[in-house]
Amino acid sequence: MLHVVSLIHDQFEDLELWYPVLRLREAGASVLLAGEKAGVEYHGKYGVPAHADISFDEIDPDSIDALLVPGGWAPDKLRRFPKVLDAVRAMFRQEKVVGQICHAGWVLVSAGVLNGYRVTSTPGIRDDMTNAGAIWLDEPVVVDRNLVSSRRPPDLPDYLKALVKLLQEKTVR
Amino acid sequence: MLHVVSLIHDQFEDLELWYPVLRLREAGASVLLAGEKAGVEYHGKYGVPAHADISFDEIDPDSIDALLVPGGWAPDKLRRFPKVLDAVRAMFRQEKVVGQICHAGWVLVSAGVLNGYRVTSTPGIRDDMTNAGAIWLDEPVVVDRNLVSSRRPPDLPDYLKALVKLLQEKTVR
Amino acid sequence: MLHVVSLIHDQFEDLELWYPVLRLREAGASVLLAGEKAGVEYHGKYGVPAHADISFDEIDPDSIDALLVPGGWAPDKLRRFPKVLDAVRAMFRQEKVVGQICHAGWVLVSAGVLNGYRVTSTPGIRDDMTNAGAIWLDEPVVVDRNLVSSRRPPDLPDYLKALVKLLQEKTVR
Amino acid sequence: MLHVVSLIHDQFEDLELWYPVLRLREAGASVLLAGEKAGVEYHGKYGVPAHADISFDEIDPDSIDALLVPGGWAPDKLRRFPKVLDAVRAMFRQEKVVGQICHAGWVLVSAGVLNGYRVTSTPGIRDDMTNAGAIWLDEPVVVDRNLVSSRRPPDLPDYLKALVKLLQEKTVR
Amino acid sequence: MLHVVSLIHDQFEDLELWYPVLRLREAGASVLLAGEKAGVEYHGKYGVPAHADISFDEIDPDSIDALLVPGGWAPDKLRRFPKVLDAVRAMFRQEKVVGQICHAGWVLVSAGVLNGYRVTSTPGIRDDMTNAGAIWLDEPVVVDRNLVSSRRPPDLPDYLKALVKLLQEKTVR
Amino acid sequence: MLHVVSLIHDQFEDLELWYPVLRLREAGASVLLAGEKAGVEYHGKYGVPAHADISFDEIDPDSIDALLVPGGWAPDKLRRFPKVLDAVRAMFRQEKVVGQICHAGWVLVSAGVLNGYRVTSTPGIRDDMTNAGAIWLDEPVVVDRNLVSSRRPPDLPDYLKALVKLLQEKTVR
Repeated sequence: MLHVVSLIHDQFEDLELWYPVLRLREAGASVLLAGEKAGVEYHGKYGVPAHADISFDEIDPDSIDALLVPGGWAPDKLRRFPKVLDAVRAMFRQEKVVGQICHAGWVLVSAGVLNGYRVTSTPGIRDDMTNAGAIWLDEPVVVDRNLVSSRRPPDLPDYLKALVKLLQEKTVR
Repeated sequence: MLHVVSLIHDQFEDLELWYPVLRLREAGASVLLAGEKAGVEYHGKYGVPAHADISFDEIDPDSIDALLVPGGWAPDKLRRFPKVLDAVRAMFRQEKVVGQICHAGWVLVSAGVLNGYRVTSTPGIRDDMTNAGAIWLDEPVVVDRNLVSSRRPPDLPDYLKALVKLLQEKTVR
Repeated sequence: MLHVVSLIHDQFEDLELWYPVLRLREAGASVLLAGEKAGVEYHGKYGVPAHADISFDEIDPDSIDALLVPGGWAPDKLRRFPKVLDAVRAMFRQEKVVGQICHAGWVLVSAGVLNGYRVTSTPGIRDDMTNAGAIWLDEPVVVDRNLVSSRRPPDLPDYLKALVKLLQEKTVR
Repeated sequence: MLHVVSLIHDQFEDLELWYPVLRLREAGASVLLAGEKAGVEYHGKYGVPAHADISFDEIDPDSIDALLVPGGWAPDKLRRFPKVLDAVRAMFRQEKVVGQICHAGWVLVSAGVLNGYRVTSTPGIRDDMTNAGAIWLDEPVVVDRNLVSSRRPPDLPDYLKALVKLLQEKTVR
Repeated sequence: MLHVVSLIHDQFEDLELWYPVLRLREAGASVLLAGEKAGVEYHGKYGVPAHADISFDEIDPDSIDALLVPGGWAPDKLRRFPKVLDAVRAMFRQEKVVGQICHAGWVLVSAGVLNGYRVTSTPGIRDDMTNAGAIWLDEPVVVDRNLVSSRRPPDLPDYLKALVKLLQEKTVR
Repeated sequence: MLHVVSLIHDQFEDLELWYPVLRLREAGASVLLAGEKAGVEYHGKYGVPAHADISFDEIDPDSIDALLVPGGWAPDKLRRFPKVLDAVRAMFRQEKVVGQICHAGWVLVSAGVLNGYRVTSTPGIRDDMTNAGAIWLDEPVVVDRNLVSSRRPPDLPDYLKALVKLLQEKTVR
């Protein structure tokens, strides 16, 4: 069974958090939500709730297969936690799957892992992505090595199709 | 390509509308949202928006493969539209896939199509379902002939796995 | 002095709860609000607050003269409490006054007391009422034996006139 | 048939507007809501809506039996309309019934009609009432000649009992 | 260094509280917020938060140079606290600077300090001000002895220019 | 008279927009708000309203003395308008005063003007600022040539003291 962690904080984009989480559960994965504090209920931009199953401290990159970063304004907070940035860097070091959509790229910018990576995101943060060394493309989904990027909610079907495919390839290998 | 229509009205349960819609798009289906008036933006219980692509009048049961009914308080309104009930009845007559979750069952109750069907729903409307002749089960997802039923948001992965499977079986036949 | 209890839960229809409660107090009755937990503040659909004086467990059908069920979405929750359904059944067994308006009928459906009763309600739940054996009429207020039914907020004056009259008749006898 | 007008503006206290309006309708009166603009929907402090049947200009003190002023923050706006103050003064000149509750007294202060009247109100505006010449009492309801005053929502039963009684006396005479 | 206290309660007008507070801090003053309870977070009409640094009990008129009263609906609550009224009266007795804007005048009305003072305010409370003995003027800012009055948010620049000037004059003397 | 323009878009930080605008008006400047569309009312994160006096197209860097960028989520939108970025670049080319606070730095990042500038901002966007070539300092206010930067609302007094001072120096010269 695949083990996946999705980061959360208040003001996540409601569908960008929940569609990937539910979709990977449908694919048979165990998906946990990691927040600043375990057991706390966070709320999306529209108000959809989400409980943190574990805290950032409990994320163990060695034992998970993928790390997801939702969009919304949550990434503006997530990027400020050293534990979050450590987890992102560890995933990249181990070449494990990372998924990010919309404004999630800010977290990867602060983790310093984007140099030379082909990515996409909301156009709003394109400059922050390219200033961090990424090659930015305006496509529904971009896959480069372990990183799957997407732009916005209507791209969620493309985003998850690519995420599921990459996870299957990684697992088989 | 599969053609699917999901009904919408204000106060739909945000994830119960959007997860199935996005998931079937990911599976390659064309999914349209049908509301009282085409072009209008409806809002979920938490406020997630959704535009109606077509009006109830434009639902053509002969040319679609599945009809979805979301939960939330929207079903309390949806069941009042004769066009909605006609569409549900036509789908059942043609033995085409119908998906319903949580409070969506009220729409099927008013369409008068549940007699003898095994179903599930939020426990809140169990009595309305059984009074309409349905056999109610407390399971994450129940499939009986053309009807796929589910209980609530955490059951969405099971609900869609069953919906996708049933749609594939129907299509192959 | 008459003793009346009104059921409450979050998302009651604000006027459908408060108009009957204040009106019967004006008529000299003692009216208590019964909620899942005594002392808790519940809020109507618009946000008007209401404190629960007693819990469902403390409702004593033997010592009260009338039981009121408000509309809104509260009935969808109220119908799930066995204590609530027990209280409704006891009132009917003792032929004591029960008042219900708008969506309140769901509680009576689940209590299984409507068979053969002439009622009204919001048109939205008419099918649930008739499936439960009731005879549904589209009138501002319907009185059948111990049961007073009404449709929606603008019918409140008719609803209370009938409720007050029935309570006076019952008391005199 | 009695003819009554209640003033409205945004941020009326929801129950202080609606309880008297519905209650006098129950008593057989025709009750119209008068706002800055006819046909506009105003909202209470909690959000309960109310449509203005007529505009302030259309209030005809000669043909109505009572004028009601609700509480909330609406009186802070109502007192700024000369037409509103004219209507209040005309009612007093003709010794016709005026009802006011909570913060409604501000409107009567600005109409300059309180000198020598015994009144009550929310304690918050007591000083404004006494500065306007009124004699302020801390009682659920105070009746002085044509004026009925009350303090706050829990006093609504007392307020309406007194209002209904005064209207009946005035009508019989 | 100048010491200033601004009163707060829920539903203060957001800019009418914060502009003077921040502006006097910019001018080098120490500005504390005094609420019903120290440490509590209050919210403006729009929702901007403000923490109470001290309670009303801790206001020491002998050791401060100015007392500010914000507008919004907060004054309707502030005027009910004897400690607030005592503080206002002490400031007037000591001829120390008091600033008030919009609906803040209600607090001064209840403190009984306005007799013979030239003031301004939102037109909504003009009658309450004149009934309390004040001479009301329709100007952006009015200075009379120790009292600086203003009408509404767009007048904030004029209000603070006058407040800063008066404080400087008082300090030099 | 000094002429200043402040950019606005929905979800500006309420005080970070209004304190500088009102403060510079107090200092005698003419301050206009420039939005995507003139005449539109925008709302801050808490809901404080602000009307756009002019559109982005109408900003004339040649005839203004300073350009202000508020924080909040508005900068995430503002940075997407070429007209906004053009205005920022023109101000830097002409060495005219630019003020930015909190998240406003994103606009300057996208304008490409920060290389070699000493700045501050909310720590949340520090990495975006340094990736754009800025030298980031954790101080209440940082002035470097024509650029005044600040961190967050409590720094507003320091921010404006520096802004006013720089504007005076520029004007005198």
